[in-house]
Amino acid sequence: MSRSCLAVILAAGDSTRMRSSMSKVLHPVAGRPMIAHVMAAVASTGVSAAALVVGRDADAVAKAGAVEGVTVEAFLQAERRGTGHAVLTAKDAIAHGYDDVLIAYGDVPLVTSATFTLAREGLADGADVVVIGFHTDKPTGYGRLLVENGELIAIREEKDASEEERKVTWCNSGLMAIDGRKALSLLEKISNNNAKGEYYLTDLVEIARADGGRVVAVDAPETEVAGCNNRAELAALERLWQERRRHELMLSGVTMVAPETVFLSYDTEIGQDAFIEPNVFFGPGVKVEAGALIHAFSHMERAHIGAGAEIGPFARLRPGATLLSKSKVGNFCEVKNAEIGEGAKVNHLTYIGDAFIGAHSNIGAGAITCNYDGVNKHQTRIGANAFIGSNSSLVAPVSIGDGAYVASGSVITEDVPADALALGRARQEIKPERAKVIRERALAFKAAKKAAK
Amino acid sequence: MSRSCLAVILAAGDSTRMRSSMSKVLHPVAGRPMIAHVMAAVASTGVSAAALVVGRDADAVAKAGAVEGVTVEAFLQAERRGTGHAVLTAKDAIAHGYDDVLIAYGDVPLVTSATFTLAREGLADGADVVVIGFHTDKPTGYGRLLVENGELIAIREEKDASEEERKVTWCNSGLMAIDGRKALSLLEKISNNNAKGEYYLTDLVEIARADGGRVVAVDAPETEVAGCNNRAELAALERLWQERRRHELMLSGVTMVAPETVFLSYDTEIGQDAFIEPNVFFGPGVKVEAGALIHAFSHMERAHIGAGAEIGPFARLRPGATLLSKSKVGNFCEVKNAEIGEGAKVNHLTYIGDAFIGAHSNIGAGAITCNYDGVNKHQTRIGANAFIGSNSSLVAPVSIGDGAYVASGSVITEDVPADALALGRARQEIKPERAKVIRERALAFKAAKKAAK
Amino acid sequence: MSRSCLAVILAAGDSTRMRSSMSKVLHPVAGRPMIAHVMAAVASTGVSAAALVVGRDADAVAKAGAVEGVTVEAFLQAERRGTGHAVLTAKDAIAHGYDDVLIAYGDVPLVTSATFTLAREGLADGADVVVIGFHTDKPTGYGRLLVENGELIAIREEKDASEEERKVTWCNSGLMAIDGRKALSLLEKISNNNAKGEYYLTDLVEIARADGGRVVAVDAPETEVAGCNNRAELAALERLWQERRRHELMLSGVTMVAPETVFLSYDTEIGQDAFIEPNVFFGPGVKVEAGALIHAFSHMERAHIGAGAEIGPFARLRPGATLLSKSKVGNFCEVKNAEIGEGAKVNHLTYIGDAFIGAHSNIGAGAITCNYDGVNKHQTRIGANAFIGSNSSLVAPVSIGDGAYVASGSVITEDVPADALALGRARQEIKPERAKVIRERALAFKAAKKAAK
Repeated sequence: MSRSCLAVILAAGDSTRMRSSMSKVLHPVAGRPMIAHVMAAVASTGVSAAALVVGRDADAVAKAGAVEGVTVEAFLQAERRGTGHAVLTAKDAIAHGYDDVLIAYGDVPLVTSATFTLAREGLADGADVVVIGFHTDKPTGYGRLLVENGELIAIREEKDASEEERKVTWCNSGLMAIDGRKALSLLEKISNNNAKGEYYLTDLVEIARADGGRVVAVDAPETEVAGCNNRAELAALERLWQERRRHELMLSGVTMVAPETVFLSYDTEIGQDAFIEPNVFFGPGVKVEAGALIHAFSHMERAHIGAGAEIGPFARLRPGATLLSKSKVGNFCEVKNAEIGEGAKVNHLTYIGDAFIGAHSNIGAGAITCNYDGVNKHQTRIGANAFIGSNSSLVAPVSIGDGAYVASGSVITEDVPADALALGRARQEIKPERAKVIRERALAFKAAKKAAK
Repeated sequence: MSRSCLAVILAAGDSTRMRSSMSKVLHPVAGRPMIAHVMAAVASTGVSAAALVVGRDADAVAKAGAVEGVTVEAFLQAERRGTGHAVLTAKDAIAHGYDDVLIAYGDVPLVTSATFTLAREGLADGADVVVIGFHTDKPTGYGRLLVENGELIAIREEKDASEEERKVTWCNSGLMAIDGRKALSLLEKISNNNAKGEYYLTDLVEIARADGGRVVAVDAPETEVAGCNNRAELAALERLWQERRRHELMLSGVTMVAPETVFLSYDTEIGQDAFIEPNVFFGPGVKVEAGALIHAFSHMERAHIGAGAEIGPFARLRPGATLLSKSKVGNFCEVKNAEIGEGAKVNHLTYIGDAFIGAHSNIGAGAITCNYDGVNKHQTRIGANAFIGSNSSLVAPVSIGDGAYVASGSVITEDVPADALALGRARQEIKPERAKVIRERALAFKAAKKAAK
Repeated sequence: MSRSCLAVILAAGDSTRMRSSMSKVLHPVAGRPMIAHVMAAVASTGVSAAALVVGRDADAVAKAGAVEGVTVEAFLQAERRGTGHAVLTAKDAIAHGYDDVLIAYGDVPLVTSATFTLAREGLADGADVVVIGFHTDKPTGYGRLLVENGELIAIREEKDASEEERKVTWCNSGLMAIDGRKALSLLEKISNNNAKGEYYLTDLVEIARADGGRVVAVDAPETEVAGCNNRAELAALERLWQERRRHELMLSGVTMVAPETVFLSYDTEIGQDAFIEPNVFFGPGVKVEAGALIHAFSHMERAHIGAGAEIGPFARLRPGATLLSKSKVGNFCEVKNAEIGEGAKVNHLTYIGDAFIGAHSNIGAGAITCNYDGVNKHQTRIGANAFIGSNSSLVAPVSIGDGAYVASGSVITEDVPADALALGRARQEIKPERAKVIRERALAFKAAKKAAK
């Protein structure tokens, strides 16, 4: 769309019912703040400038709302005098004279660019105001959209509605688009001549029509315009988001045995024929390639899982984990800032941090890269086709050559050449009958302790 | 309420459909027996005496039903001759002459003290019998409450109801309150002159009215009066309980990304702005302070998580785990009977049992407190700012001083002074080209084994 | 039923909407391919021969469809010309002259043998064609079953239905049974004289009636006849299957705290009074005996859990794990191809592979059986009442005698006699004040690194 557009985002809600020490719009859905969802949708709609109307945590909100391609300006809303008044907080931005002005809300995060675009098309078709409505089975409490001959003639509040009007199930979402050249003059005509003494944005319908303008309504899915006033509603938004995204991924060819137990982030990418068992958590920044197998109880963030790789159950991939194709990370393994080579296996009870593991190497159960000395992190490099014995400790910085073999239970502090065997463990001793003695002594200790009580 | 009150709890259900070797009322909801839920509600209502009408597992039921502030007496119900007969098993208690008598059920565990109080207020207002009803969309099978001029004139059983009466959606829950001074004489008037030859408690409505008494009905949410006849219904009760408690916690300022995957116990406490990822299990006795972060796949019981502390993913806190503020217990870590000091970190693959860890100490991956000698448990004490290397074993009883450093892979059996370095590991040896030899030998073994088949 | 029966299974769907590199009917529900579910139901109905009409992945489909007691023949469907045409692909099998011919679908996997039997009983009662119908609240899109005087007179497609007919909520599932002696002649009368030029199986109703035959409809639960065209529908089938099986198990005496989070396989068996916490995954081949306790976050496949045994939380049992009665496998433990003796304990952070653990032995935290040398797997045998210290490594093949004691942190490469103590660890050294030096050096390194940037 070649028309210029300003989005005004109301994000100053005071969060009382959230009972939070943080602004409501900073609370996350799908791993990012609600305000960032709104801004991403705004950006996808081709909006070039946004006015964020903020209250508490203004800096944090503005920062969270930053998005590529959109110039964001924050406006501090000092008083709470109604939505009409809130929008006018951004008066200076609106006065710039954009073609379109979109009104959105920081706590209505599931709205899509398709819906914003639909509203802007209404403006392009000559409307002065386009209200975004939604159909619902439970309209009670919402303003009803009254339409005649294709024009929106009023938004009727519940309390003012006739019995007939209350049967209307098309309702006002609060979101709207306004002709940018008329926006300021229309907004300034809103009065607070009402019971609560507030400035209502919905008055724009009457005001625009009284001016001889045309007002229309467009439709959005009910799920897109749901808002959030407390944490139960926040959880409901999360659920709607998750259901939408899971469905998209399944239709694109991803198997989820129990989609309701798979938690995605806003940027999760999963390739075709990937298979996801129940109870999997994708934090932000995860990409899963085609044909990968994610077992139950896996937890990932900022990780890359190569084609045909397999993780879990009970695997944890932390930031910087890169699994090349057909590699495997098994149960009770943690991988952080490390590359696991093609076909390499890290199967059991292992911590791999700040490391590079070559192709087809095998890391035994309980092996650990000791990457931290209490102050600095150091790197471990393991070549291809190496074999790291169980319960061994690789004290970084250290390097293990191709085809090398580390004996079980060894502590490795010096580099191991290719094809060498490295040991670092004491010789076994046997003390016959001594276990009996130990057991007897322990039982005596226990008896003495009991007697002492 | 200053009126004295006896609660009669019917808890002798024979559990056939539970297919259990244990009395039905001992099956848990939210981590405690159903009977204990009922008794807790009774106690909160200010009841001072309870008569438990029990069948099998009488001692265990009486024990599970014990609650502070209530004198509990158990009465053995030998025969099953209807609810009216069952209540009269507790005749001796009823004969004491309390102001109020409440009738409750051991397998109706979600009832709240608010509902009991409402019923007792009915008695205080002069009613002889107060029936607790509930509204439902699916009344089929329930007795309908027939009300005229504010009085309950009958409980009409499904089979006796006219077509008009079947449309009534206000139903009998079975719970009720009876004027204590009249209770015994009313109950003794119940006859078994009916098709099944049983004594029905519901006959009290007619009996009281025939005596010139006043009978009223009060309302409880349908979810409070649900009962349990098999384990599918037990799971349904658990779900209702969980939904109710999760909702309360969210409204109080706790974030749950996916509340339907968070399992709480009857006594779980969580502070404001705590953040709970999906798939978290709270066993009994857990308290989470404000601002704590509980990652996915965490399992806790009888543990205390301090303000701003962080656990999981894949953390397990067992009884006696006490995490001071801003401490961290990470993936694949188990903590039992141990204090983790302020800001201390136990991040990976670690077992900490019977231990004390000082502030800001760091426990490396795979480190283990060896607290058990096969007979006794011993204690490990770690000072502040200590660093325990990866894969090390601390053989208790043992003490590590402030600022001490244990080298990776060490076995520590003697105390380590403050600021000392302790090592207990063999020197590394390298055998060049030996890995090749081992590999060849192993391949030869494999081939021989195959040939032998 | 003594009548002979052929099942024709249409399994050539092209899976376009599955977006899969694999035939649709190979996608699993409850841990086995959909086609195998259908074949199992067919086999339980006493069918002796099946004709699989296959497209892509013909060999894999035929293999997955193999089931004991049924002779399976595959027929390749080259073209897609309607269901009637597809069934005739198996003409040679139908021509054999079975008493009954059942028509089923590879992507309708939840159908039960009870439903197939009902349809066959219709044939036994003299019908020529028996259509399997289902009642639904949302009939839109389905063919409606029109019944007069107990006979099915037509299957009316949505587009051809009158307003009155559209109100019919009894619909065609597509499944049917045909008199085997008439099947071929009836099927060959289906023409493609319709808008799409396809051969519709549903035309059999009219054809049979025109021949003077009797056509009836029988009823199946809606949940049994649901099909699958994409992965969202696959997930829906999985959910229906899981709900059905969970419910059966609960009614049989298994407690599931949160059944919606327990994932079963097609062959999972669980005994009475077993207690299953939330978030448990049963892969194929798991049997749980009576009274076992499965804690949250447990993952099992091809494992046997004995009576009164306890696993988890965070336990993983892999193929061949056999837990004898009252044994225990605790958090972050993996057991594979190993027997855990009666009352033995494997409680923390342990890998037990290819092993045998005697009764009442205790395996310490972090102990590992080193069963793999990079090429071969070797066995570890531990006797009864043994004690394996924490963090020890048992390098297989190795044997530990009854009552033996392995010291914490030991690497054991040689057999340990009964009642002996085995050690394999270095003596501890203390370097006073050295931790301070290390810390200072590390801080200097950090500072230098920072300066270098």
